[in-house]
Amino acid sequence: MLTIGLFGFGCVGQGLWDVIHRTHGLRSQIARICVKDKHKSRPLPRNAFTFDRDDILNDDTINVVVELIDDAEAAFEIVSAAMRKGKAVVTANKKMVATRFRELLEIQQETQQPLLYEASTGGSIPIIRNLEEYYDNDLLSGVEGIVNGTTNYILSKLSANIEARYHDVLREAQQLGFAESDPSLDVDAWDAAYKTVVISAHAFGAVIHPDSVIRRGIATITPFDVAAARSHGCDIKLLSRSSLHNNQLIAWALPTFVPLTDMLSRVVNETNAIRLHGAFSDDQLLIGKGAGAHPTASAVLSDIAALKYSYRYEYKKLLLNDIPQFSTDISTRVYIRGNDNQLNSIEFSDVEIDHKANNNRYLIGETSIRALVESEPFNSSECFIAIA
Amino acid sequence: MLTIGLFGFGCVGQGLWDVIHRTHGLRSQIARICVKDKHKSRPLPRNAFTFDRDDILNDDTINVVVELIDDAEAAFEIVSAAMRKGKAVVTANKKMVATRFRELLEIQQETQQPLLYEASTGGSIPIIRNLEEYYDNDLLSGVEGIVNGTTNYILSKLSANIEARYHDVLREAQQLGFAESDPSLDVDAWDAAYKTVVISAHAFGAVIHPDSVIRRGIATITPFDVAAARSHGCDIKLLSRSSLHNNQLIAWALPTFVPLTDMLSRVVNETNAIRLHGAFSDDQLLIGKGAGAHPTASAVLSDIAALKYSYRYEYKKLLLNDIPQFSTDISTRVYIRGNDNQLNSIEFSDVEIDHKANNNRYLIGETSIRALVESEPFNSSECFIAIA
Repeated sequence: MLTIGLFGFGCVGQGLWDVIHRTHGLRSQIARICVKDKHKSRPLPRNAFTFDRDDILNDDTINVVVELIDDAEAAFEIVSAAMRKGKAVVTANKKMVATRFRELLEIQQETQQPLLYEASTGGSIPIIRNLEEYYDNDLLSGVEGIVNGTTNYILSKLSANIEARYHDVLREAQQLGFAESDPSLDVDAWDAAYKTVVISAHAFGAVIHPDSVIRRGIATITPFDVAAARSHGCDIKLLSRSSLHNNQLIAWALPTFVPLTDMLSRVVNETNAIRLHGAFSDDQLLIGKGAGAHPTASAVLSDIAALKYSYRYEYKKLLLNDIPQFSTDISTRVYIRGNDNQLNSIEFSDVEIDHKANNNRYLIGETSIRALVESEPFNSSECFIAIA
Repeated sequence: MLTIGLFGFGCVGQGLWDVIHRTHGLRSQIARICVKDKHKSRPLPRNAFTFDRDDILNDDTINVVVELIDDAEAAFEIVSAAMRKGKAVVTANKKMVATRFRELLEIQQETQQPLLYEASTGGSIPIIRNLEEYYDNDLLSGVEGIVNGTTNYILSKLSANIEARYHDVLREAQQLGFAESDPSLDVDAWDAAYKTVVISAHAFGAVIHPDSVIRRGIATITPFDVAAARSHGCDIKLLSRSSLHNNQLIAWALPTFVPLTDMLSRVVNETNAIRLHGAFSDDQLLIGKGAGAHPTASAVLSDIAALKYSYRYEYKKLLLNDIPQFSTDISTRVYIRGNDNQLNSIEFSDVEIDHKANNNRYLIGETSIRALVESEPFNSSECFIAIA
């Protein structure tokens, strides 16, 4: 029997509460919910809540803490304190998991308490569990996918209506609740970068900092870019990628031209999809809802269910001898749209296409990731860049 | 360190041998290979082989048996003997697993040896592991998918060329190695029925016999049927389905109208896809190559890798109190093409469409699974039947 102390009572927290109270098989109960705002009206009796985290942390009858708050720093304090108090922890906080990965590992070793975070990555897709359990051998060469529902929603709308403008679609997404009022976490690909960190660690044992992930968002996209991709038989998707090249790790979150013949191009709106490239077998593609309360609550529930049989991540790949090193010394094909000065500033090893139309120009060519990252266009707020 | 005794050296066995000898991380070796045909020429030295199963079964240095032979009865003898000799077993034999499920469970309990069979179902898709580990709660309401590569290849070709005839496409598939010279296992949906048994057991804890699975194949399909489906915005796929209706289990392997807007309709050729319906969350779709040596070898390898950390199926759902009972007392919407006598023999609760064109006629309507199974068309070698 699991007795849960819950931190946070937003959409996901409420969804979780509903499901646990509707379901018999889980044999779990939420004993206490810690929230911040004393004045907000809530659908449960007042005594279900506390405003003091110690009411949960010091309660020895609570053996599981579920952490669902926004603030990554406060979450880290709660999670580490809970584990040190001998409680198992389930969290959905990708920023916390990605930025404090090594510290969280150490606390797991020190306390021997499980920390599960399936809900942090890939929405309802059981990606971490699969990387931990099923792809535990050198049969995996890469993981790539659509891991951010907000940007996929925006990009789908831009693709469906080639005249649509980014800022209009963003506003619409905000009105529908698919984007935050401050959208930068999503549209600047920070969210995808956090998830890339989690995937890299569980896929290849390589722990990198989110700041190291090669990252560029979609905020500069124009109808010209969407049309350019289409002229090459592609849609634009924001892809997270962790893959191996000669035992070096590529880790990026970048807009990418995805051929219309590729299943990933059919994954639209807030849906997520993650493709696993096998070294000896063909690909597997896992598709599921990525954003919203239900997919997240469902992943949290699966973690809670796993705790009932003492499941924990074993991080086997982090213990291997030849963990791949993160590298930017890799050549790739990119699309860059910008003005003459911007485009001339990039070191291409080969320019395949140079296209000018009225005031717009783009190049498609080979360059190294390092040269790309250091280039002016990569750091400008005008150019649009995509893996091509 | 795993020391493997291998039974069978067809495509999958040879693929497995290659990968194990190319790969460092697996820390496994194949000590001996048992084959049947003494006169076949093989790409390995003669002393790698034996023709006597006891050379493997009685060798105490061998701790894992990998069984990859065709004959389900002989496979059962080998597998049960190996476990009783204290060896872990990995098998790809879906017929054996499905027909001897309860006996294999008992031998696992008696011997405490793990028996893994991911390769038996869904090709390279890790479906069993996911059902065992991730969907271990009452959050699952149904599993459906394309689990037979041969029929999906044939149906894809029929869909791509609406004039094409079943027997021509079957012959082509046989020439390309996508269908066996005796195709009945695939085209009569026996293979899909075996996989439905395995899925039902791991998804819902319900062990049924393959003969009980509601099963009908694709051998009677005509261009008229493909066109009829298309006129309703659908493609025809052979779907395995295990799902719950009021805690009763539906288990079938039947041709099904799949809307062209559904991702499953995009899964073509030998690719497999399995969709998990969550009770509280949205669907997850898992896609991967389904037929052929490499996907199977890759699934076998993942099982071998899992043995290194003492993984075993726990069959938690079989221990639950309220295991759903298999039932045919469920109403469903079906498409039936046949002559007037055949069509008049079915008890429909509601006929939605009655379509005649020249010598062809079909009905689409509601009927119970029981009435369907007992009807003349279901048992005829002329009618085509699909869930609509």
